[in-house]
Amino acid sequence: MFLFFSKKKYRNPVPTVDIIIEVKDGVVLIERKNAPHGWAIPGGFVDYGESLEAAARREANEETNLDVALTQLLYTYSNPHRDSRQHTISSVFIAKAKGTPQAQDDAKSLAVFHPHKFPKNLAFDHAQILADYLNFKKTGKLPRPTL
Amino acid sequence: MFLFFSKKKYRNPVPTVDIIIEVKDGVVLIERKNAPHGWAIPGGFVDYGESLEAAARREANEETNLDVALTQLLYTYSNPHRDSRQHTISSVFIAKAKGTPQAQDDAKSLAVFHPHKFPKNLAFDHAQILADYLNFKKTGKLPRPTL
Repeated sequence: MFLFFSKKKYRNPVPTVDIIIEVKDGVVLIERKNAPHGWAIPGGFVDYGESLEAAARREANEETNLDVALTQLLYTYSNPHRDSRQHTISSVFIAKAKGTPQAQDDAKSLAVFHPHKFPKNLAFDHAQILADYLNFKKTGKLPRPTL
Repeated sequence: MFLFFSKKKYRNPVPTVDIIIEVKDGVVLIERKNAPHGWAIPGGFVDYGESLEAAARREANEETNLDVALTQLLYTYSNPHRDSRQHTISSVFIAKAKGTPQAQDDAKSLAVFHPHKFPKNLAFDHAQILADYLNFKKTGKLPRPTL
């Protein structure tokens, strides 16, 4: 005799945060140790029971050793193809920090880039996000939802 | 002999959307059929593989029978206590629509409220969201992340 227990499990996109950290000489980016390789905005997964803002401050600290002050939500990016591994939805914050960032475990290396000299090999949709960030800094306009 | 199979499953907050739909005479709200009761901004869960914007248009249509055009992301609300049932993270859009909204399955009833005459018994954190919306319409300023 066989008993089958079937429980329908609803699958949801996974919430993440990314933090565009402004320091004295530019914006902090990390070079990824794991695939997908390339440079990326620091960020990570949001824990259950944790607000986006708390997750953003925690991830920024874990990845750069900086204590950041969040200044702005740039946009929440949710294109299902933005991360080839799984469907993530990233709320991207702009933040300010003092001090010198230091690469932590998740990063191969870390660098501060002048906003007009961002690296070309950016992972995920981070080239689009940084373009939106530069446009916001220039015009004060945040990204709008597209049809 | 007993065999225990333990698989650590990472639990994530669940992404949702809410849509502040502006029609000719005001904003469309729905009276909830299920607990928590009260009036609410139309919205629902984001499907895996669906963008926030697609989810917002789909949920608006399912709940009000309107075809909406999204104009703005107001903010993404993530307080772990915003919904007592589970931790949801809601991206709230502002949208415009023509025509007459009609209550669908999920709603007990539906009404259009003048922005200065929103009902008092609002579910979830929707009183805060509508206060943020009114402030945005008045000042042009979107909510900022709080520490």
